[in-house]
Amino acid sequence: MQKELKQLMGYRKSIRVLDATLRDGGLVNNFEFTPEFTKALYETNKRAGVDYMEFGYRASKEMFNVADHGPWKFASDDDIRAVVGDNVGGPKISIMADVGRCDFRTDIVKKSESPVDMIRVACYLHQIPGAQEMIEYCKEQGYEVTCNIMAISHAQESDLKEALDLIGQSSVDVIYIVDSYGALYPEEMTRVVDIYRESSEKYGKELGIHAHNNQQLAFANTIECIGDGVNYLDATYNSMGRGAGNCAMELLLGFLKNPKYREYDALKFVQDYMVPLKQQGVTWGYDLQYLITGLLDQHPRSAIQFTKEKRTDYAIFYRDILSVD
Amino acid sequence: MQKELKQLMGYRKSIRVLDATLRDGGLVNNFEFTPEFTKALYETNKRAGVDYMEFGYRASKEMFNVADHGPWKFASDDDIRAVVGDNVGGPKISIMADVGRCDFRTDIVKKSESPVDMIRVACYLHQIPGAQEMIEYCKEQGYEVTCNIMAISHAQESDLKEALDLIGQSSVDVIYIVDSYGALYPEEMTRVVDIYRESSEKYGKELGIHAHNNQQLAFANTIECIGDGVNYLDATYNSMGRGAGNCAMELLLGFLKNPKYREYDALKFVQDYMVPLKQQGVTWGYDLQYLITGLLDQHPRSAIQFTKEKRTDYAIFYRDILSVD
Repeated sequence: MQKELKQLMGYRKSIRVLDATLRDGGLVNNFEFTPEFTKALYETNKRAGVDYMEFGYRASKEMFNVADHGPWKFASDDDIRAVVGDNVGGPKISIMADVGRCDFRTDIVKKSESPVDMIRVACYLHQIPGAQEMIEYCKEQGYEVTCNIMAISHAQESDLKEALDLIGQSSVDVIYIVDSYGALYPEEMTRVVDIYRESSEKYGKELGIHAHNNQQLAFANTIECIGDGVNYLDATYNSMGRGAGNCAMELLLGFLKNPKYREYDALKFVQDYMVPLKQQGVTWGYDLQYLITGLLDQHPRSAIQFTKEKRTDYAIFYRDILSVD
Repeated sequence: MQKELKQLMGYRKSIRVLDATLRDGGLVNNFEFTPEFTKALYETNKRAGVDYMEFGYRASKEMFNVADHGPWKFASDDDIRAVVGDNVGGPKISIMADVGRCDFRTDIVKKSESPVDMIRVACYLHQIPGAQEMIEYCKEQGYEVTCNIMAISHAQESDLKEALDLIGQSSVDVIYIVDSYGALYPEEMTRVVDIYRESSEKYGKELGIHAHNNQQLAFANTIECIGDGVNYLDATYNSMGRGAGNCAMELLLGFLKNPKYREYDALKFVQDYMVPLKQQGVTWGYDLQYLITGLLDQHPRSAIQFTKEKRTDYAIFYRDILSVD
C-alpha cells in the first residue's frame, strides 16, 4: 500500500490523539502526580486540542493497596471529576482497565453517572475471553471501548489473527496495536497493521497505536501507522512512560497538520512541568539499556532494574541478557 | 516500491556503515578529541566491523587558524597515520572536504601516498561546479569519492534533479542524501530517494544517507532508506553530532543483521568514552529546541545558541522563531 504522502500537507479528520501521560507515565512515579500537575495537564490537553486524556488505571482496590499508590492507579470517577468538573470543551476522558486486575462490575458504573467517556481494556493474548466479557459489560454501560492487546511482538501470527477475529466480533470500537517492548521497526509496523486490518475492516472497527521508544522509534512507528490508516494515536508529554517511554506528544502534534492541535501548548507544558519532574529525579526515556531490551524483544524489567541501580555498564548488561531464558 | 521486509532477517552485503563521530561530533567540541579517544574509536570501528571511519574535515589552513581548532578540523595524513599506522584489517578511512573551504590541490595528495581511501565532497546546491571540479581531481588522485549535497530540504525539486544529473555525470562513486536540518519524515525519505535514484540508476552510482536526529527520526530515516536500496549509511556513536546529532551507531548496528557488525563493541565504546564525554559537559543530542528547528525546517544555529545559553523556555523559543525570515 502506498503511504499517504499527501497527509504531510493536508490532514485526516478521523485522527484522534490520546494523552497517556498520567497512565503510562504513572508507571514511572507510582502515579504520584500533584493535583497542580494533573490540573495543568488537563488544561493543556484542552488548549492543545488533544482528543482524549487518559487519567490512569482503574485497578482493583481489593488487589492493590490504595495507600501504596498515587490516585491514578485507581482513577476513580470522583478523583477525575475533581479535575475536570463538567469537562466543558475538554478532551474526552479515558481510563484503562486490565483484564484480571480490576473489579469492573463494581467499579465501572453507567456512563451517564461517570465523567469517563472511554474504557480501554488491556489484556494479553491468553486473556481474550476475559477481554470480551469486559468489553461487552462496558459497552452495555454506554462507554466507548477499546481493546489493547499487549506484548504482541511475542505472539504467534496465527494466534494473533485468531484473537483479532474474536475481538472483531465483539462490540469494541477500537483495537489497539501495542508494541510493549519497543521491538518493532517501521517496516514491520506495516506488516502488523495489515494483520489488524483484516479484522478491523471485516468488522468495522477503528485501529490504534501505542508505541514505546526503546529504539527511538515510537514517533516513527506512530507516523508509519498513520500512513497505514490507523486513526487512534497514543502519546505522552516528553515521552513519559515506562522504561524508554512513549511517542512524544510534542513530536506528534508538530507532525499533525490539523490546526486544532497546538504545538505551543505542548511545548509550554513540557517546559513548565515535565522538565522540573525530570530535575526532581523522576527517570524515564531512551537510554542504552532500553535499546538493548527492545533490540532483543524482551520485557524492559531488567533494563528498569539496571536504571534503578544507576548502572552504566551497558556492554555487560547486553552480554548478560543476550541469552537469558 | 515494496520495502525489503526480508532484510529484517537476512542482510544485504552491499551495505556500508560509515562512522562520522570525529567529523560531525567534532562540530560539537571543536574537534578536540584526545589521542586516547581517537585511538579507542579506531579500534572499536575495527572490531565492530564498521566499514568506513571518517577522521574529520580537511579544512584549509589558510582560511582557518590551526591553533583555534582540534586536529580533526584539518585531518592531515600524518595525524591519521599516527592513529591507524598501516591500517591493517581496519575500516577504510574517509575525510570530508567542503567546496570552497579546502585547498584540495595542495592538501590532497595521491592516494598511494595517503592513508585515506575516500574523500567526501560536501557542497550546497549552488556549488555544484565546484563539487564537480573537486570530484574529478580526487578521482584522478585515486580515491573513492562521494558527493554530499547539504540542506536539501530547502532545495527546489527541479534544482535538485538538475544538480543530481550533473553530479551523476561526474566520476563520483556515491551520492549522499543529507538531511542537514533533520526536517524530513520517513514517508518523505522514500520520495526523496526516488529523486536521487533517477540519477544514481542512470549513471550507475551508489546512494548514501546522512540523517540528523532533530525529530528523533535519524535512525528511522536511515532504515527507511535501507528499504529503498540506499547502501551507504552514516552513523555516530551515541548520536554525537551537531545539534541533535545523527543516527546512533549502536541503534544501526543492532538493526543490521550482518554478523560482521558487533553491537557489543559499539555499546562498550559508548559506555567507556561517550558517556564520560557527556559527563564532562560536552552537549549534543535530541532536545526540544532541535525538535522545533527540525519541525520548522530551519538551520539549527538558533537552537545551538539556545543550548549554549542553557535556556529552557522552549515555548518562547518556538514562538519567536515561528516566523523568522
